[in-house]
Amino acid sequence: MRDPRDHHDPGPAMPERRSVLKAGVALAAAPLLAGVAARADAAPKPVDVGGPFSTRAFGSASASGPLGPLQVKRRALGPHDVLLDVLYCGICHSDIHQARDEWSALPTAFPCVPGHEVIGRVQAVGGAVTKFKAGDIGGVGCMVDSCGTCESCLADREQNCVNGATFTYNSPDRATGEHTFGGYSERMVVSERFVIRIPPGADLAATAPLLCAGITTFSPMQHWKLGPRQRVGVIGLGGLGHIAVKLAAARKAEVTVFTTSPGKVADARRLGAQEAVLWSDTDAMKRLANRFDLLISTVPETYPMQPFMDLLKLDATLVNVGALNQLQGLNGMALAFGRKSLAGSVIGGIAETQEVVDYCAARNIKADIELIRPDDVNRAFERVVNKDVRYRFVIDVASGKPRSATERG
Amino acid sequence: MRDPRDHHDPGPAMPERRSVLKAGVALAAAPLLAGVAARADAAPKPVDVGGPFSTRAFGSASASGPLGPLQVKRRALGPHDVLLDVLYCGICHSDIHQARDEWSALPTAFPCVPGHEVIGRVQAVGGAVTKFKAGDIGGVGCMVDSCGTCESCLADREQNCVNGATFTYNSPDRATGEHTFGGYSERMVVSERFVIRIPPGADLAATAPLLCAGITTFSPMQHWKLGPRQRVGVIGLGGLGHIAVKLAAARKAEVTVFTTSPGKVADARRLGAQEAVLWSDTDAMKRLANRFDLLISTVPETYPMQPFMDLLKLDATLVNVGALNQLQGLNGMALAFGRKSLAGSVIGGIAETQEVVDYCAARNIKADIELIRPDDVNRAFERVVNKDVRYRFVIDVASGKPRSATERG
Repeated sequence: MRDPRDHHDPGPAMPERRSVLKAGVALAAAPLLAGVAARADAAPKPVDVGGPFSTRAFGSASASGPLGPLQVKRRALGPHDVLLDVLYCGICHSDIHQARDEWSALPTAFPCVPGHEVIGRVQAVGGAVTKFKAGDIGGVGCMVDSCGTCESCLADREQNCVNGATFTYNSPDRATGEHTFGGYSERMVVSERFVIRIPPGADLAATAPLLCAGITTFSPMQHWKLGPRQRVGVIGLGGLGHIAVKLAAARKAEVTVFTTSPGKVADARRLGAQEAVLWSDTDAMKRLANRFDLLISTVPETYPMQPFMDLLKLDATLVNVGALNQLQGLNGMALAFGRKSLAGSVIGGIAETQEVVDYCAARNIKADIELIRPDDVNRAFERVVNKDVRYRFVIDVASGKPRSATERG
Repeated sequence: MRDPRDHHDPGPAMPERRSVLKAGVALAAAPLLAGVAARADAAPKPVDVGGPFSTRAFGSASASGPLGPLQVKRRALGPHDVLLDVLYCGICHSDIHQARDEWSALPTAFPCVPGHEVIGRVQAVGGAVTKFKAGDIGGVGCMVDSCGTCESCLADREQNCVNGATFTYNSPDRATGEHTFGGYSERMVVSERFVIRIPPGADLAATAPLLCAGITTFSPMQHWKLGPRQRVGVIGLGGLGHIAVKLAAARKAEVTVFTTSPGKVADARRLGAQEAVLWSDTDAMKRLANRFDLLISTVPETYPMQPFMDLLKLDATLVNVGALNQLQGLNGMALAFGRKSLAGSVIGGIAETQEVVDYCAARNIKADIELIRPDDVNRAFERVVNKDVRYRFVIDVASGKPRSATERG
């Protein structure tokens, strides 16, 4: 039988297990970092289902330090909270930027536990929770809370919460005031409003990246109404870019990938692109001038953008979802002469995140992933920076963890 | 009786004068630069109505040099051409940038004769011209030609001509291959398609700036659909900015001006703004965060734009119509978090230019001008650079020129 963690398949055993968990019996806490620090932790031990919970995590104590095992605290379950036993967590380039304190506009509070592409199993729920039951599979993306009352929140745009969304890590927790810790950890406590339902049958590990990479690229396609036969360019073929190609191809758009990696050209076609162009190919860049209805830049670093702005049709937009620092290389005259726009976009609201997860489940769209153990995170960070991943690392958080009877199936 | 050049009033004498001019009799050529170089030129002399025409102009021989009198050639009248006796020409900051070769993307060919806010009287027309008769008043903006057949031209967007619009100066003339000379000159030959009809009764000198400053700010208001009660910010209160305020106020938008000049604050209200804010007023900038539906930046130099991007509402756009060089100070994260856009826009098509001229005539909207003689141009350039003009210099091209009997009225 396949590992039940890999494909979400709530079979007949599930309700029974749920009721056990709902009853608040002792839960199994198992080591996140078995390979790193396996000791007495290897054996399940009882914990209070109400919390607060001390949980093992993998994070950094300073901008220069590597990530290592940490013990962090999760708040006690509030009435609307869900306790998740984390199964998988994707590695987003943002995790690296944040862990290394590379964003001047968003300084890092240490210790920093990254991770915002989280798939977990619900272990317990607060008394008022209606959306999940113990045993359900839930996803957590980049946000875990927002004010819920401002015009953005009321418009399902929690990412634009006027009072500031609470991000999954490095953000002040509205409940405790302490800063949030992300999904590189064994357990999380998250308001049910911010937990995404994962459709039955989903490939859980390959679904995790949809919670950031997926929504980040889906949302601008929705907002800028990318349609069939429109010409879209995806700049950068990494974690975000490869999902963007799949999502754009699903919309029957004509996709061109712009990559700096000759080794990714063949992949681009396999993923659904009509064409892949190297940034250095000046002939192709000239040939493609004024041809694109939409460009989505997924490159997580700043770079001179004008050569790409030049590829846009009149009135068209380059949406930057990757470079979150100072932008560079934009020429006012060239923008003006084509009435071109440079826009930014960040993730999407919770309803839209649910939408992309459902959309992808219905079309069997998932990330191309390389599954790693938690103690491989530092090496994975280096490989991400070196563009050496096809195309998303996902941490198998529970790897090395002894399975409970039900998890063994 | 008022000077008939100042207000366009085709009275009963006009048809008669027109028919005389149409008959191709000798025209009066008079000195543009009477004060600079008045000599024998002061007396009218006959010229061939068919051309080519040698005409006096005011331009620069190099990027460093001051402007001075020049003799330039105007092509012979083609069947669709109009010969204009220039009456007024506004001084746009672009004239200064171009004369000084300050735009890397658009190098200057010398000699350079600037001027693209031109009002003139039709002196003669080619055989196939139907839009104008001799004696009519015509306006010339930033373009004098385009391919006429591409999808942009067919969509009345000649400024975006796929094959390159011919700009009024410093652009290869489609007919002759030589580079074009602008309106700081006594006469121009322009295809009728690119000559704007000036409504009867218009204040001619104060209408000239509509041909660049007017269309440049009107077009983005149309495209981004600025409507009543919407909040618009006008960044920079100069030639473009002061017209933008008037145009936005005419649309019943709520206008805030952002200026670096304390001396312009009171003017902003007089021009129709609700509020004027100094760039240095950090409290006001904070108070106005996330408040604007549209920002139009008319500043002709690059400056850090993020503080203004921060004033936009979610999804809103800052349209840069002023800075035509490298843009600076844009933060990817801040744009992304508000899904904000930076766009460029350049003038508008000929139909839209006609529209803004008619729109302004119907509402008595005109520029606040300071009329100068041609030999004041160098001093005016300095004053424009020093933000010392309220709000547009217009060259009285025919000043000092002996009037013909009909022009004296």
